[in-house]
Amino acid sequence: MSSFRFQILARDPHSLARAGILHTPHGPIPTPAFLPVGTQATVKGCPPEMLKSLGVSVVMSNAYHLALRPGVEAVKALGGLHALAGWDGPMMTDSGGFQVFSLAHRRKLDLDGVDFRSHLDGSLLRFTPESLMALQAGLGADLIMPLDVCSAGGADRATAEGEMRLTLAWAARAIAAERRGDQLLYGIVQGAAHPDLRVASAQATRALGFQAYAIGGLSVGESKAATLAALDAAVVELPDEAPRHLLGVGHPEDFVTGVLRGMDSFDCVMPTRVARTGGALTWGGRVNMRNAVHAQDPAPLDAHCACPTCRRFSRGAIRHFLKAGEMLGAILLTVHNLHFMLRLMDDLRQAILDGRLSEVREQLAERLGGGLHADLIRRAPPVLAG
Amino acid sequence: MSSFRFQILARDPHSLARAGILHTPHGPIPTPAFLPVGTQATVKGCPPEMLKSLGVSVVMSNAYHLALRPGVEAVKALGGLHALAGWDGPMMTDSGGFQVFSLAHRRKLDLDGVDFRSHLDGSLLRFTPESLMALQAGLGADLIMPLDVCSAGGADRATAEGEMRLTLAWAARAIAAERRGDQLLYGIVQGAAHPDLRVASAQATRALGFQAYAIGGLSVGESKAATLAALDAAVVELPDEAPRHLLGVGHPEDFVTGVLRGMDSFDCVMPTRVARTGGALTWGGRVNMRNAVHAQDPAPLDAHCACPTCRRFSRGAIRHFLKAGEMLGAILLTVHNLHFMLRLMDDLRQAILDGRLSEVREQLAERLGGGLHADLIRRAPPVLAG
Repeated sequence: MSSFRFQILARDPHSLARAGILHTPHGPIPTPAFLPVGTQATVKGCPPEMLKSLGVSVVMSNAYHLALRPGVEAVKALGGLHALAGWDGPMMTDSGGFQVFSLAHRRKLDLDGVDFRSHLDGSLLRFTPESLMALQAGLGADLIMPLDVCSAGGADRATAEGEMRLTLAWAARAIAAERRGDQLLYGIVQGAAHPDLRVASAQATRALGFQAYAIGGLSVGESKAATLAALDAAVVELPDEAPRHLLGVGHPEDFVTGVLRGMDSFDCVMPTRVARTGGALTWGGRVNMRNAVHAQDPAPLDAHCACPTCRRFSRGAIRHFLKAGEMLGAILLTVHNLHFMLRLMDDLRQAILDGRLSEVREQLAERLGGGLHADLIRRAPPVLAG
Repeated sequence: MSSFRFQILARDPHSLARAGILHTPHGPIPTPAFLPVGTQATVKGCPPEMLKSLGVSVVMSNAYHLALRPGVEAVKALGGLHALAGWDGPMMTDSGGFQVFSLAHRRKLDLDGVDFRSHLDGSLLRFTPESLMALQAGLGADLIMPLDVCSAGGADRATAEGEMRLTLAWAARAIAAERRGDQLLYGIVQGAAHPDLRVASAQATRALGFQAYAIGGLSVGESKAATLAALDAAVVELPDEAPRHLLGVGHPEDFVTGVLRGMDSFDCVMPTRVARTGGALTWGGRVNMRNAVHAQDPAPLDAHCACPTCRRFSRGAIRHFLKAGEMLGAILLTVHNLHFMLRLMDDLRQAILDGRLSEVREQLAERLGGGLHADLIRRAPPVLAG
């Protein structure tokens, strides 16, 4: 991975948290990092220039979606994914394994790959570990994922183990496939909510010699506690010096618990998806901005927020644009929600760099509200307790 | 109009064209000016910060639409129209006369005003000249319009005359009504496509003593030649020192012919509406960017265009976002189309300031294509020919 270098700048002495920089051919990614999701090469509700001014360093896109539309040949003809997206910073593509198993129709899994029908037009397609590497080479993201099988959250042990073993077999083929020098391939740990399978998956994936690791299947419906137990089991088996990405997980409390467990990056559609339905992220939880209570409220969404939306628009204005069906409503909330998540991640990063994470972690447990979340944020990862 | 000053900086010796600055409480408007339309307090497909960076100086909004939603009391509670829109530059509100006659249901006109049903929820509403002044005082745009009756393009002489007389009677009541010192009220010239009615309307409106004038009813279906004949008849009757706005007219060739006839500002939904259906404005005419021919085209929409879209996105990328239903597609084309219109207006303004309008006019006649449009651009207004 000559084009890549992961530099760890500081560590929290009381958890696995670390702050660093992942250097990529398209620039540095300060970590821990939040990746807004631009499934079809655009983050819905936030044009690239606005992403830039919000301080976004890296964007997640999706190989499955782009393979279906506009197709890899079109992306190549247009100069690659960065050119398509109008984004010159680092990009990651998710393999689409998750989408094949959640979106595609009539999927048929075999040891060699997966047949499925496009959710757009029903056309028959096939992904193999090798074809997905070729697809992502064509797209040209900096950070890429091998084809994996994402188990359902409640998958029983036998199913989860079978899917985890298939993911491993595919990972071995992906890492053996021809690869561009300017792409960093992550090995994906699976195993559903079974800690022993997570350990086995992490160990075997590590044995394949990846330079970066992702933990998958933790956004598919298990409880927060079960998710963290699986994460705890896996993360300590991964090499300390490699960057670690947590796939599809990104509620505010998940950032904190994930960072405490040594995760370096997170992607999640939640902040942008919630925005488009009128939901604003605040320290007090989600606020439905379509509610009539906001109609004549001249106050900003959050008086302490420095985002462009809170600096310039009232709650009443946001509600007006949402109710009037104007795209500005979705844009304003997307900007606010992304800013909320980016600032939260920045605060965590700065706290690690400044040696104040314990203090900030306690503050965040308070601010993010009581009950389960605060408890999970306060609880130290078992590796340190043991 | 102590808060307003219209400064004419240069005149074209071969036409009625002039370049100037209309000073308003929210800043200067260099003229001739193009006003993007933000009907519901937002220009669809272009957030305020992007309008600003495109060089937009003034935005048009709509009193009828805002009265229906969110309602004037909400706008007042939220700090007025500028605060609602997140726009601190000059704004104009159209009265909504045109919308009452085109959008509202079951309208019933009497000498005192007009009853109509909201196109949103069917509720019964009434506009009078006085109520519309109060409404616009509540909204707080810098430039405002009185209630008028917008005749159909093909209105016969008797109908057009009756509607023009009613517009005059309402104008007299509007100018007599209580008014904020920080709003400039335009007198609206009507008369459909009947030049003698346009003359009578302009003379009588002028006699009422307005400080600014608008010409209405020229976007409702008459031929370009008939429209220009009506415009020619009216414009010479208006006081030279007052700013003149052409309501709802704004195809590229209309800018040129309107500027040549001494019009100082123009508003039109065309550039933004066309963008949302996938249409790009170019010197060669409109291009449908949804067309398959663009799918793998890495060239920008216009290689000579300096807009943010053409600098960063290919034709293929624009098509992808349009076909994928991503709002970025509409945003990219809106930005391009607004830039196209703003640059055209800037070129005209600069040519007047530099004494090169004859030359630029001939170039524009060539660039905007042959036939009728070129002919109309080349033809001098009759006031100079006569």
